[in-house]
Amino acid sequence: MTTTALLTDHYELTMLQASLADGTAHRRSVFELFARRLPDGRRYGVVCGVGRVLDAIEDFRFGDATLTHLQERGVVDAPTLDWLAGFRFTGDVHGYRDGELYFPGSPVLVVESTFAEAVLLETLVLSILNHDAAIASAAARMTVAAGDRPCIEMGSRRTHEQAAVAAARAAYVAGFASTSNLEAGRRHGIPTAGTAAHAFTMLHDTEHDAFAAQVAALGPGTTLLVDTYDVAAAVETAVEVAGPGLGAVRLDSGDLPVLAGQVRRQLDGLGATGTRIIVTSDLDEYAIAGLAAAPVDGYGVGTALVTGSGHPTCGFVYKLVARAGADGTLVPVAKKSQDKASVGGRKTALRRRDPSGTATAEVIAVGGSPHDDGDDRPLAAPLVVDGERVHDEPLTVSRDRLRTALEELPLQAKQLSRGEPAIPTVYEQED
Amino acid sequence: MTTTALLTDHYELTMLQASLADGTAHRRSVFELFARRLPDGRRYGVVCGVGRVLDAIEDFRFGDATLTHLQERGVVDAPTLDWLAGFRFTGDVHGYRDGELYFPGSPVLVVESTFAEAVLLETLVLSILNHDAAIASAAARMTVAAGDRPCIEMGSRRTHEQAAVAAARAAYVAGFASTSNLEAGRRHGIPTAGTAAHAFTMLHDTEHDAFAAQVAALGPGTTLLVDTYDVAAAVETAVEVAGPGLGAVRLDSGDLPVLAGQVRRQLDGLGATGTRIIVTSDLDEYAIAGLAAAPVDGYGVGTALVTGSGHPTCGFVYKLVARAGADGTLVPVAKKSQDKASVGGRKTALRRRDPSGTATAEVIAVGGSPHDDGDDRPLAAPLVVDGERVHDEPLTVSRDRLRTALEELPLQAKQLSRGEPAIPTVYEQED
Repeated sequence: MTTTALLTDHYELTMLQASLADGTAHRRSVFELFARRLPDGRRYGVVCGVGRVLDAIEDFRFGDATLTHLQERGVVDAPTLDWLAGFRFTGDVHGYRDGELYFPGSPVLVVESTFAEAVLLETLVLSILNHDAAIASAAARMTVAAGDRPCIEMGSRRTHEQAAVAAARAAYVAGFASTSNLEAGRRHGIPTAGTAAHAFTMLHDTEHDAFAAQVAALGPGTTLLVDTYDVAAAVETAVEVAGPGLGAVRLDSGDLPVLAGQVRRQLDGLGATGTRIIVTSDLDEYAIAGLAAAPVDGYGVGTALVTGSGHPTCGFVYKLVARAGADGTLVPVAKKSQDKASVGGRKTALRRRDPSGTATAEVIAVGGSPHDDGDDRPLAAPLVVDGERVHDEPLTVSRDRLRTALEELPLQAKQLSRGEPAIPTVYEQED
Repeated sequence: MTTTALLTDHYELTMLQASLADGTAHRRSVFELFARRLPDGRRYGVVCGVGRVLDAIEDFRFGDATLTHLQERGVVDAPTLDWLAGFRFTGDVHGYRDGELYFPGSPVLVVESTFAEAVLLETLVLSILNHDAAIASAAARMTVAAGDRPCIEMGSRRTHEQAAVAAARAAYVAGFASTSNLEAGRRHGIPTAGTAAHAFTMLHDTEHDAFAAQVAALGPGTTLLVDTYDVAAAVETAVEVAGPGLGAVRLDSGDLPVLAGQVRRQLDGLGATGTRIIVTSDLDEYAIAGLAAAPVDGYGVGTALVTGSGHPTCGFVYKLVARAGADGTLVPVAKKSQDKASVGGRKTALRRRDPSGTATAEVIAVGGSPHDDGDDRPLAAPLVVDGERVHDEPLTVSRDRLRTALEELPLQAKQLSRGEPAIPTVYEQED
């Protein structure tokens, strides 16, 4: 059995034990996942990982092997183990969907159930969303900077081997064209791409031999890597071997804006006017933007993508915002910790838009529904109802959602320069 | 079947196809994994993930489902699929072991086999080591800064759910006392710890109720979280409920050096002189060092640990450094790419030490063995021989290796301040 049950923090189980013992475990509770702020200078965040969260909740079951382990290690007592043996999430989850934008305070995910059921999901849900949304948020800046030119995700080698698969998924949601990661192709249906590394050239006695072998195996439409030794000599060899119908050349080092121009002129001079130039050397959104005027046809992005381009985690937190009192009535709760105070009460959000359709605010109602001015857009959808998953969508739908949500933003929000969130967060208190 | 075969980049399979077609796939090849440099300002790096790499190589097999997928997606041709069906790594791996230190150029892992076998491992091996060593390298700075006080890993929620398990393992190798991650406890045998979050306090009608429930369930030796509302009031309630034998209190917000002093005095005044103070608010190695003079008994570290404290990846690369020519003789190879040139030839390293046992250089011999001055220490061990794994060790051995290796460094290398690598890398060319 695939289980996600132990991708959990120890304290969730000890809280369960203590609350089962005094009965508070069964109090109706509302937890919210949100970010207190965006990473410094970022204008928007991109929700991603919701689909993976719903898969993970379905797999959150405590089988015999897991229970035996918890017993042997003395993590929790026998009544708690009994309760866990029958565990299946039976509550509700509402939230933003993959590709939606979020801002400080946005109630990205709202989990409503008993305390026992909802508290157990804390770490798993945070892990997935903190990672995937960090990658998607960085990736969206890259695809915006790249404009119509395709971005290729190739960062697997610079991050944990399973995080790599999730990163490829997040990049695809954010508009990347393809990934190098084969498991992302299998698991999520993302187009995969790749041709050869420097090792392939060095394996051969000459660069000519290497190019000839690659073209023989993959056809003249392949991408030849031309910077192992001397770029100009390699480009000449490449066109000689593949003919002017060569698909693309790849540059992975050097002063890319200058080099791309030189290679473009050389290719054109050799009659290879349709041969594309792909660049791949430690690119981030700023480097991509810096290449906008260069004759580049595609960007391969690795390290900066999988590390969130300086912000590898979103800082999402998962907080109890309301719970039933002894009499069963739902009571808003909030901690008052210095610098970490939170706003109690269940929240519902919409994106306020002016009549032209431009977003003007993230409106968050506390304890009720936000007032719709007529042009506004609700942000959350039911994801799980009474324990049944009611949301599942292809990644292409998430991609479209992000494209639409970005188009709604004020124009300047899509610049790379550091600034405040693109729209302010406005709280509406219930009347 | 658990397989790691698709945690691979597309281009490794296309290189395989092209090299199988022209016969170069069977050329004897040596690949090396190394870092061109340390992250900016860091004095040393910590090798970690080698044990996981060896597990992953054992699981690197192409089963029927995988082959069918590759065929349906048209990733490679039929002869390549046939070759993959029988794949099992039959080569040799030498390398540094978990807990060893590395420096720029250190030949951390050397994979020797046919090109076909060795090239396939590139992405998987890089993913694991780039992640795990980044975490261990940050973690070691934290445990050094913490001195004799224990560090607790609690960053799972801020990183990918599986990366979290590997991060807990890396932190443990680097001297952390325990982790919050239950799966790390199950999979790697690491001690797990945790008691309660703010949600547990807010679930209850009063803080007193919450503390009483926790002490009833977990005993007075538990750790009570005292910053949900008012710290001084919570500390008083905590001792009232648990008695002066209360195990610990936890502070998760505020000005920790000041607050820790106040809480210590209050606890002492209440007779709880043995109650420890654990702090957990967004700590990194600098914050830990800044608390050295405060009456703190343990540090919980989250975000900074799992994101490598500013350096979430090591920048390890995996390069072909030698391969057989047409006549079967091994020939050193190196690319000449601008800013990314590499040193060809198989490398062997030792740590040069002066007669007092202090490390003075990372000596790397190219194509032969380095000269041992008498006090030096070899760094690599055989890990896989003829496809058979010959290395497996408990994490406690890796922990000890790191402690010993750090003790060898010049004293100033253990300061947190930015600087050059603690020892220089010296290349010895074969005579």
